[in-house]
Amino acid sequence: MAIEKPTLVLHEQRARRNIEKMAAKAVKSGVRFRAHFKTHQAAQIGEWFRECGVESITVSSLDMADYFARHGWRDITVAFPANILEIAKINRLAEALDLGLLVESTETAAFLAQHLTAKAAAWIKIDVGSLRTGIPWDQPEDVIAVAAEVERAGPLSFRGLLTHAGHAYQAKSRQEITKVYQETASRMQHVRHYLQARGFQKTEISVGDTPTCTVVEDLGDVDEIRPGNFVFYDLMQLQLGVCSEEEIAVAVACPVVAKHEDRDEAIVYGGAVHLSRESIPGPDEAQAFGYVALPTQEGWGPFIQGGYVSSLSQEHGAVRLPDHVLGGLHVGDVLMVVPVHSCLTANLMKAYRTLDGQTITAMGAS
Amino acid sequence: MAIEKPTLVLHEQRARRNIEKMAAKAVKSGVRFRAHFKTHQAAQIGEWFRECGVESITVSSLDMADYFARHGWRDITVAFPANILEIAKINRLAEALDLGLLVESTETAAFLAQHLTAKAAAWIKIDVGSLRTGIPWDQPEDVIAVAAEVERAGPLSFRGLLTHAGHAYQAKSRQEITKVYQETASRMQHVRHYLQARGFQKTEISVGDTPTCTVVEDLGDVDEIRPGNFVFYDLMQLQLGVCSEEEIAVAVACPVVAKHEDRDEAIVYGGAVHLSRESIPGPDEAQAFGYVALPTQEGWGPFIQGGYVSSLSQEHGAVRLPDHVLGGLHVGDVLMVVPVHSCLTANLMKAYRTLDGQTITAMGAS
Repeated sequence: MAIEKPTLVLHEQRARRNIEKMAAKAVKSGVRFRAHFKTHQAAQIGEWFRECGVESITVSSLDMADYFARHGWRDITVAFPANILEIAKINRLAEALDLGLLVESTETAAFLAQHLTAKAAAWIKIDVGSLRTGIPWDQPEDVIAVAAEVERAGPLSFRGLLTHAGHAYQAKSRQEITKVYQETASRMQHVRHYLQARGFQKTEISVGDTPTCTVVEDLGDVDEIRPGNFVFYDLMQLQLGVCSEEEIAVAVACPVVAKHEDRDEAIVYGGAVHLSRESIPGPDEAQAFGYVALPTQEGWGPFIQGGYVSSLSQEHGAVRLPDHVLGGLHVGDVLMVVPVHSCLTANLMKAYRTLDGQTITAMGAS
Repeated sequence: MAIEKPTLVLHEQRARRNIEKMAAKAVKSGVRFRAHFKTHQAAQIGEWFRECGVESITVSSLDMADYFARHGWRDITVAFPANILEIAKINRLAEALDLGLLVESTETAAFLAQHLTAKAAAWIKIDVGSLRTGIPWDQPEDVIAVAAEVERAGPLSFRGLLTHAGHAYQAKSRQEITKVYQETASRMQHVRHYLQARGFQKTEISVGDTPTCTVVEDLGDVDEIRPGNFVFYDLMQLQLGVCSEEEIAVAVACPVVAKHEDRDEAIVYGGAVHLSRESIPGPDEAQAFGYVALPTQEGWGPFIQGGYVSSLSQEHGAVRLPDHVLGGLHVGDVLMVVPVHSCLTANLMKAYRTLDGQTITAMGAS
């Protein structure tokens, strides 16, 4: 593969396998697989999901909904609190497809009631412990208030309860991740029972995050799952124990532009504008902005033990490497940097190169 | 200003004033102002520099050189170690304009000697203490070796010594920043004397970073300066004591999509894909991903005391706000988030909205 500059290399076979596994698990669990497309943001990769039977998707912005609508998707939930300033765009999308919106306040529900001009489904966002958005699960009376406001609204109909267990990312083991899922499912069911007892009989439950959806075998306690990151996985998921090194499907090919053997570093063309500044704890209490591997015919080899991206500037990455690797490296060689958070890296790069040299562009590619 | 989604708002008057001040200082100091364009990456903003007499620029990639070449710039230094894998692009650019390249190894110099097909100027990168790239200033014999290799190379000619005092960002006061500049200038002169004594009579010195170029009044110890960030400044520069709040020229307008008064937070549409994950130490030992202000007719008001972006997801920002502000805020209002590192924010956003509603696009805008 001829690399000239930082290039996001996609191991298609791994990504397809990740998709197949999750799709098979959803079928086995009897839940809808509403895959989150914010990680890859690419129409062509979306087709790999379609080949696995996926028909409903999740996105994180109305612009992303619009992009995938233009590529034939007709059942899209925007898993982000409805932004009433974009009501014109919401109406255009609601007209064209089965649009799901997130509502968590009576204000937003009331606004939509007044301004929505086409049918849309409302999911009420529940906070099961991540403390980001949503109505706390133990305040079901607030959920009722929003659901009632939603139902009052002409073209808006109440669909169910949606959550994102973001605190799964703080778990210290697969057991803890499983516990987060069980707690999430039980809290969501608690809210559902409360609603059902008050007339909201048809209340679906939607959950979604890569750690719990990967680790838990049977997801049958809910109605739909919305994981996204699993298509590529990354170092965060690896560090959580959620995936193996061999399941990570993307790496940034970075040209070596300088060597500094006195400080065990190679400098690569590949910086914060390629990888993002997301980091994980690396060796020796350092921050790691990526792990590194050597390119191979099959993509890239195992992580170089002791190797990691130790600092980033806008375009530069400093890669700490053991002597025996650094010694054999030359300016003009390529290092493969496996990203900490593949969603942010893919969002920055906006295009993929598959191992057979095909280019796949994503939303927003210039 | 009608905001619908995260929008990078540019206070043109402040940016123009920042440019004018730096251009005037360069004239007064008798140094060339080779402004770094990696911060704004926009042809139209480049014109504001031209109006201040700037004719030579710095960029951080060959693609950026190509972009500005297409917008009429003819004297461009790529302040990044020459990436020999892009030799075809280097040759195209060298053919079309006065191209400056960074060289720091005999390997790269030898490669260019063999493959360069048009004239280009070589700057040798010197490390004066930032420990990122470059030949350490106290190893001038290595500089001589590279300079000799450069001069052997047909179309490549040795221009001078270039450094980036990145460690200025670790300074604790304006005095320390001044000290970094003085030390930088003296170390660069030390290397120059060494080269001059060995036949390299014409050796220019190029330095450039926003902290030293802003703080130091007379930059006459060097031949050219290459600051870039100063066009917008940001919270990093403010925290360093380099700029005032009123000199910061960009802020991201973010719609409020949810309120969580129990934890003193508003949730805005504005996340890591808009602001970048760069942070500074915020209040209470927290990380701050941005400070916040209210929009005004003149752009935005003073920072809300105690307000800051306390966490970021891909598209969400959690904004900590004092009660009296949060109480008056509604879903659909807009908060202005002043970024930690404007270079990374601008790189993500790829377009600006001026206060009079004009859109300015940057390189790579889709």
